[in-house]
Amino acid sequence: MEQQTAYLEAHKDRFLAELFDLLRIPSVSAKSEHAPDVHRTAEFIRAKLAEAGADNAELCPTAGYPIVYAEKIIDPKLPTVLVYGHYDVQPPEPLELWHTPPFEPTVRDGKIYARGACDDKGQMYMHLKAFELMMQTNTLPCNVKFMIEGEEEIGSNNLEIFVKNNQAKLAADVILISDTGMIANDVPSIDIGLRGMSYLEVEVTGPNRDLHSGAYGGAVANPINILCEMIASLKDANNRITIPGFYDDVVEVSAEERALMAQTPFDEEAYKADLNIGAVHGEAGYTTLERTGIRPTLDVNGIWGGYIGEGAKTVLPSKAYAKISMRLVPNQQSDKITALFQQHFTSIAPPSVKVEVRPHHGGEPAITPTDTIAFQAASRAMEDTFGKKPIPTRGGGSIPIVALFEKELGLKTVLFGFGLDSDAIHSPNEHYGLFNYYKGIETIPLFFKHFAELSAK
Amino acid sequence: MEQQTAYLEAHKDRFLAELFDLLRIPSVSAKSEHAPDVHRTAEFIRAKLAEAGADNAELCPTAGYPIVYAEKIIDPKLPTVLVYGHYDVQPPEPLELWHTPPFEPTVRDGKIYARGACDDKGQMYMHLKAFELMMQTNTLPCNVKFMIEGEEEIGSNNLEIFVKNNQAKLAADVILISDTGMIANDVPSIDIGLRGMSYLEVEVTGPNRDLHSGAYGGAVANPINILCEMIASLKDANNRITIPGFYDDVVEVSAEERALMAQTPFDEEAYKADLNIGAVHGEAGYTTLERTGIRPTLDVNGIWGGYIGEGAKTVLPSKAYAKISMRLVPNQQSDKITALFQQHFTSIAPPSVKVEVRPHHGGEPAITPTDTIAFQAASRAMEDTFGKKPIPTRGGGSIPIVALFEKELGLKTVLFGFGLDSDAIHSPNEHYGLFNYYKGIETIPLFFKHFAELSAK
Repeated sequence: MEQQTAYLEAHKDRFLAELFDLLRIPSVSAKSEHAPDVHRTAEFIRAKLAEAGADNAELCPTAGYPIVYAEKIIDPKLPTVLVYGHYDVQPPEPLELWHTPPFEPTVRDGKIYARGACDDKGQMYMHLKAFELMMQTNTLPCNVKFMIEGEEEIGSNNLEIFVKNNQAKLAADVILISDTGMIANDVPSIDIGLRGMSYLEVEVTGPNRDLHSGAYGGAVANPINILCEMIASLKDANNRITIPGFYDDVVEVSAEERALMAQTPFDEEAYKADLNIGAVHGEAGYTTLERTGIRPTLDVNGIWGGYIGEGAKTVLPSKAYAKISMRLVPNQQSDKITALFQQHFTSIAPPSVKVEVRPHHGGEPAITPTDTIAFQAASRAMEDTFGKKPIPTRGGGSIPIVALFEKELGLKTVLFGFGLDSDAIHSPNEHYGLFNYYKGIETIPLFFKHFAELSAK
Repeated sequence: MEQQTAYLEAHKDRFLAELFDLLRIPSVSAKSEHAPDVHRTAEFIRAKLAEAGADNAELCPTAGYPIVYAEKIIDPKLPTVLVYGHYDVQPPEPLELWHTPPFEPTVRDGKIYARGACDDKGQMYMHLKAFELMMQTNTLPCNVKFMIEGEEEIGSNNLEIFVKNNQAKLAADVILISDTGMIANDVPSIDIGLRGMSYLEVEVTGPNRDLHSGAYGGAVANPINILCEMIASLKDANNRITIPGFYDDVVEVSAEERALMAQTPFDEEAYKADLNIGAVHGEAGYTTLERTGIRPTLDVNGIWGGYIGEGAKTVLPSKAYAKISMRLVPNQQSDKITALFQQHFTSIAPPSVKVEVRPHHGGEPAITPTDTIAFQAASRAMEDTFGKKPIPTRGGGSIPIVALFEKELGLKTVLFGFGLDSDAIHSPNEHYGLFNYYKGIETIPLFFKHFAELSAK
């Protein structure tokens, strides 16, 4: 391993410079004006994989953005690791809250600030550099395949068909993904559960045109007031979601597992201080870690309607809108929850308004096993580089493709994330620690080593 | 009167062309970038008053936009009419809903389409042209003063101090305002009641930064969800406002007066069809005309928070905002209601968020008397030109200055409005009928004639 350490040390600055080049491309998949940038990013990744020594590096076309594929098969009899990541990023808005521009990466206090710094360009690019390092030091111990997509932030709509149509090409023994976090830089952990998602947009229409609130106010339904009432009614006084059937398929976690979760180091006072909130807020009867880990949620991600400019306007608007997402837990199904929401939300609309519910995208919840060779390899790799055994945790985010890979390829996933909750992913001033970037590049080759060794036994 | 009719006929096209010039200036008082336009509009009005024959036409400076003053005193012993109007307009947004640009006036189907076409440039300018007509035909029967302000759409904040400081200058016998509507072009009516207003902006802050809804959702209060819950709680199942003390000062209208109101021609089916709504919506126990005329209301005029762009973003935002206005009825007081709202809204915030309430502006409700010479003059003038006696009605809008004039100048107001509810004031595609514009110019001199004659008796 000394050889690997030396290589990393010698190429540190270039590894960072390359990541900066990647972060400078605004690959916002949600916005059509960025389409050329998203395509440029795909080609960047393909070229870097080829340069690092991968074979068959190619852009696989889809109905949307291309999937970058590459591989290095050193011996068909050896096991194969399929690395998944994504090269697209969330929109950077609100821009005025960024301290430095989102697509001009800047290092401050040992952290790289840029949209995608952590999610997922930074974490994904660690795999490219770890691969280069293994190739250049002749230490790649098994086969590796890469599948890096460009539509993760908009629902991975074209990934399923690609995976279905390329089962032989994607054949592997395990999926390795770095798109999650760990508890702290000195408390390594590995996510073993992920929440699924249903994301919808709702539109409430009152009168057919904006009205003067003096002439009509009080007699005509105001779609903003109605939307607020409808949204408020989606949770009860215990913050439980009121959509009929919503909890039907939720697997209640055993008292034993909850006791285990309660041992995860967590300082609620520090958590509140970090967010500057007077109190946490969630479903009655569950702790904060349970609320984000094992319980489903419903959040309004955006709302708008009426006059939102400077000053006052006494309008009774025609329309009001909201973007609403629900995080799902095993065994809730995204399609079913989306349908339950649509049905319920439409049913609670008063006759004075019209309601339209448009599903955006969904994803299934997943639990990854801890009794596999791959999980053991990941655990040992982290123990090697952090000096501590990582804690298994259940994360609140959604990586719907974990369930997809299991269904279509029959493969389990290891969520080998090096981010932190405080990295502000999806927010202004997203960042990723230099420590985390380099620690990932250092740890990934050890996963390959342990995985190859344990597989050989 | 033949002479007047002939003059109007001869100058019709110019009267319209001048209004178009006025409508082309985007005098949006709510937006600071339009400050030069607002000032330009004031000067336009001043110059037109001087051209029409008024004396002492001047721009009276205030802490905000100037008030245009002018007068024609033909004989100090004769009565004086003080005409009030405003030259500022509402913001035109949302722009994409206008069929022709808001500041390029266009005539379609006999209607002038432009921001301010009705509210209040069109109605206010009728008075300038009626004045010109009386001057040019030597038929001005009494004194007239003009006070045209530029901050009506943002709360007339500087009018009160101006009126207080200029009581002698503004001395008159009655205030005449055209800034309201009538029932229909063939059903003339005169507003005798106006609602007051409290307008506030609220800001709900959850965490100190935008968060990823996967990592934090379910455990941290989402300010949009909380704002919706707080707004929803402001009304009960009967659509009564729940703010403690809100109804304390409301004067309940007598059964007799309600019976009289019920005789106002009103077709609820046509009303619903015009707005394309399945049902009206308001306070239980009151009719539509009562809900807009004699009952107070609470409407959200604008709401925003989180991600409102194209596509999906799974953000748990730091902040959510709403603009909320309440229409008030006699004897509610704007300052008192604003304070009750602030106190209540702050008190219902859960400890997981912070709430700020910022008052925008307010105005007092008012009732204008029907037993005055001025009301009789207005009624006779309309009867002359419409061939029908106008119906006294109670309008839902707010012209706070009516209460102000009564308090500071001891003067009663006649609300001599020629607009229609369907004119889409404050909305995209605001318009004003050519019929209404010319009918106003024709009717106003008759008000002066009857007022002078009745005063002489």
